[in-house]
Amino acid sequence: MPEDAQGLAGFGYELGLLKRVRRSGWWHAGVKDPESVADHTMRAAQLAALIAAEEGADPARAALLALWHDTQETRTGDLPHTAGPYLAKPDPRRITADQTERLPERSRSLVRKAVDEYEARETLEARCAKDADKLEMLLQAVEYRDAGVARTDGWIDSARKDLHTDTGRRIAEAAVTLSPLSWRDR
Amino acid sequence: MPEDAQGLAGFGYELGLLKRVRRSGWWHAGVKDPESVADHTMRAAQLAALIAAEEGADPARAALLALWHDTQETRTGDLPHTAGPYLAKPDPRRITADQTERLPERSRSLVRKAVDEYEARETLEARCAKDADKLEMLLQAVEYRDAGVARTDGWIDSARKDLHTDTGRRIAEAAVTLSPLSWRDR
Amino acid sequence: MPEDAQGLAGFGYELGLLKRVRRSGWWHAGVKDPESVADHTMRAAQLAALIAAEEGADPARAALLALWHDTQETRTGDLPHTAGPYLAKPDPRRITADQTERLPERSRSLVRKAVDEYEARETLEARCAKDADKLEMLLQAVEYRDAGVARTDGWIDSARKDLHTDTGRRIAEAAVTLSPLSWRDR
Amino acid sequence: MPEDAQGLAGFGYELGLLKRVRRSGWWHAGVKDPESVADHTMRAAQLAALIAAEEGADPARAALLALWHDTQETRTGDLPHTAGPYLAKPDPRRITADQTERLPERSRSLVRKAVDEYEARETLEARCAKDADKLEMLLQAVEYRDAGVARTDGWIDSARKDLHTDTGRRIAEAAVTLSPLSWRDR
Amino acid sequence: MPEDAQGLAGFGYELGLLKRVRRSGWWHAGVKDPESVADHTMRAAQLAALIAAEEGADPARAALLALWHDTQETRTGDLPHTAGPYLAKPDPRRITADQTERLPERSRSLVRKAVDEYEARETLEARCAKDADKLEMLLQAVEYRDAGVARTDGWIDSARKDLHTDTGRRIAEAAVTLSPLSWRDR
Amino acid sequence: MPEDAQGLAGFGYELGLLKRVRRSGWWHAGVKDPESVADHTMRAAQLAALIAAEEGADPARAALLALWHDTQETRTGDLPHTAGPYLAKPDPRRITADQTERLPERSRSLVRKAVDEYEARETLEARCAKDADKLEMLLQAVEYRDAGVARTDGWIDSARKDLHTDTGRRIAEAAVTLSPLSWRDR
Repeated sequence: MPEDAQGLAGFGYELGLLKRVRRSGWWHAGVKDPESVADHTMRAAQLAALIAAEEGADPARAALLALWHDTQETRTGDLPHTAGPYLAKPDPRRITADQTERLPERSRSLVRKAVDEYEARETLEARCAKDADKLEMLLQAVEYRDAGVARTDGWIDSARKDLHTDTGRRIAEAAVTLSPLSWRDR
Repeated sequence: MPEDAQGLAGFGYELGLLKRVRRSGWWHAGVKDPESVADHTMRAAQLAALIAAEEGADPARAALLALWHDTQETRTGDLPHTAGPYLAKPDPRRITADQTERLPERSRSLVRKAVDEYEARETLEARCAKDADKLEMLLQAVEYRDAGVARTDGWIDSARKDLHTDTGRRIAEAAVTLSPLSWRDR
Repeated sequence: MPEDAQGLAGFGYELGLLKRVRRSGWWHAGVKDPESVADHTMRAAQLAALIAAEEGADPARAALLALWHDTQETRTGDLPHTAGPYLAKPDPRRITADQTERLPERSRSLVRKAVDEYEARETLEARCAKDADKLEMLLQAVEYRDAGVARTDGWIDSARKDLHTDTGRRIAEAAVTLSPLSWRDR
Repeated sequence: MPEDAQGLAGFGYELGLLKRVRRSGWWHAGVKDPESVADHTMRAAQLAALIAAEEGADPARAALLALWHDTQETRTGDLPHTAGPYLAKPDPRRITADQTERLPERSRSLVRKAVDEYEARETLEARCAKDADKLEMLLQAVEYRDAGVARTDGWIDSARKDLHTDTGRRIAEAAVTLSPLSWRDR
Repeated sequence: MPEDAQGLAGFGYELGLLKRVRRSGWWHAGVKDPESVADHTMRAAQLAALIAAEEGADPARAALLALWHDTQETRTGDLPHTAGPYLAKPDPRRITADQTERLPERSRSLVRKAVDEYEARETLEARCAKDADKLEMLLQAVEYRDAGVARTDGWIDSARKDLHTDTGRRIAEAAVTLSPLSWRDR
Repeated sequence: MPEDAQGLAGFGYELGLLKRVRRSGWWHAGVKDPESVADHTMRAAQLAALIAAEEGADPARAALLALWHDTQETRTGDLPHTAGPYLAKPDPRRITADQTERLPERSRSLVRKAVDEYEARETLEARCAKDADKLEMLLQAVEYRDAGVARTDGWIDSARKDLHTDTGRRIAEAAVTLSPLSWRDR
């Protein structure tokens, strides 16, 4: 039992790394101090719940899948797109297996199943979570553009092309025409 | 329909503020550049799922409640503890009502119900989410202590006294004896 | 006597919080790492002296009033404009009373009278200090605009409309047409 | 007249540099991201007013002198102590003369007289302002020590030896025995 | 010819990424905002020259090898140690080949030969450069320790065990007993 | 001998200051958190090697000269251009003499000769290193411009006018027409 608690606490500390690991892709866009993986993950999980609500999927499940979608980066860091030709994409399931090894059974099963379902992309909830991941990046790209960053078009376009739910696509279309701050003035 | 999408996109931009708003309490502990509210929220939601799994509650629901628990801070900022005597605590439900006003029905209902359930603290999932909020702060306090910050004891103690699930308490006991980084050496 | 010194030292440490507390309003404009309340206060106090000199008021008194105008934020943080509908504005005099409780008589009286005079806005020096507060924000808004931030117009306009001395208005008109850095090239 | 306003606005922008220029001495102590010159100046001016109140001097005048005491650093930066053997200390009055050249007469005279009085160190107000400069550094050194920085003793000791008012010395003695945060717990 | 200049300028911009990419290993030690790869590379190259001078090797050559030793990280980022089990180490020579593809012949040959020599570790200059890489990390670990970071022992020990020149080992022994700042007091 | 090692380790710690000292000129352009002197030095040394390769000079020697060209700033900080009228430029050779006083003979001679050769500007390698210093600033200016900073033209123009090798000039012409990030899209 105390070992269970240690496993959970140790996993909690490992997840804390995501509060420090930066979203490395933005360094390529010239952003010196980009947001953390945790910053990204929070909004992705919130958007996953909203997209799922509109798509008729289970919002809590979609949010849960999004919550673990980048947790493997405590071990590998956030690999930038340019690493593609040089590094074989690591298997998220294998990293998750190692990360959750000392968790008590119920927690371990919870996390592993969430990662499995997200990676398989077969359920509607997994697709909502994946769209949320892309959409979060699109919103952030527009926010950086409004903060003066010159070359965010590539990020915006690649996100728009990679959305699979109707709700995700509709939010993206609205987001690119809307100013990040205009909600304040309505 | 496009208005729905605008409402969702605008809400997404408002949630983006949580990636910039700092957890202001740490300024009192001497931390110059504390983590964001989003950083805190991600780990709180993950811990909520784990605690719920161990407590026999619904992990996805507990995580969903935790995801929205500080979202009112886009409007008020993160009020430090010392503000207590001077400011009446704002009503989270009223702020949430305003924030979700332009959302389509299903999304609006989702967020409002999650905030209602969390604030009422009547379900086991709400109690797991609340414990996760406190536990996240405790883990962060130990992490700041290991980064050299002198006066984190008050934060650690206040978090330990304010936990209501058995799992939350057991993780806390393990966390204060465990080093944030010792998981790497096991 | 040693108690007096402890009161002064403790107050000095409390004022140090203003070096860490960020000017939260800029988070709404998309600025990730805005300046501290202390940063703002220094220039506001300097501008108060200059405005007072031009208006025929007492420059040292105007500067002194400006120096304490945001010191209550050690207790409440910097409340953003959007908090308005949800939080009753705290009474600066009450917070100042608490902050200065352990100061020796002369220091306590000095700070309390300065806050009283500033808040009453009845003397010319108080009006110069208030204009300096607004003007400092206007200069900062133009500086952020030149650093790439997209939506600073609202800040600039609201500051311009809220100036009450002739000198404050004239500096504002010059500031918006002048580049923050053109003084170097003259 | 519009030229006067331009002179004042341009000077306001030049003073804004102090919000970005870092207190370079702390880099030698291993602090990566030290506070700005403006951060230091605000608390120095506040302390100058408090010391003057206790010493029976004019608090507003002492604060005004402290407000301009480092403003020459918009031109030279903050020269670290180690530069001593290699650089002749620049004349603050000469830099101030250049900085205030385009100010209208009353503002120009105000700033130049303040710098003259501070540098001459002949009035009690100037001595209070100078002590405040040293005391602010001492408080900051203790704050950095409590944030984990190892080698702040030299800064603390050099500040203690360089105080000339009785009040300044008494606050320093209290400050080194008091914790920066213990005011919260009293 | 203009194409040559474009190749060189483009390569210069790619190298600029190293000023933004953080040394990710320190996130594991709890450092929130670690230094850049460029920060590390400068001191590594300087140390390589010094070690080579003492070892009777060619200092300029050793420095040149160190200057390119992490440049592949513009494509892959700085992979943390914990990525080892999940990612096959990318081939530096292959990345360098791609990075230098558009350089004019002499520049391309220069960089490729430097990377080849460094990776082969056959010359004394390559061994000096490699020791400089480790030694730079050791010095930084002691600097972070003195800034309050709790768990730097692992970094210090692993660096000490991985030095291959006599000079490198002697500097390491001196460095761990010496305070980073005591040079100022001599 | 142990004294030699202490001299080298102490010098290594002194060089570490360059990882913290900021390139102060950018504060004048409105950049809040500019890169370190070490960041600048790494790319300057790399560019020096490339320019030398194209000019038929010794690339390793040019890089070595560039590596020490700003190391005197551990003592003086990075003096901004605006300090010119108020401070006599310190003699780099004299500072280097003091910095290297406790180094063993071979290291001391290496550094002193490199600084002498760079400052004399008589060899082709010294001219390549000097051009690299300017060119690095030009590339950084374009990078800041693309990050939203308004007034980088002065920096770009002054760098372009101050290049003395044909290769340096050609890279500069290409750099100002090329986007910092377009190398990714080619």
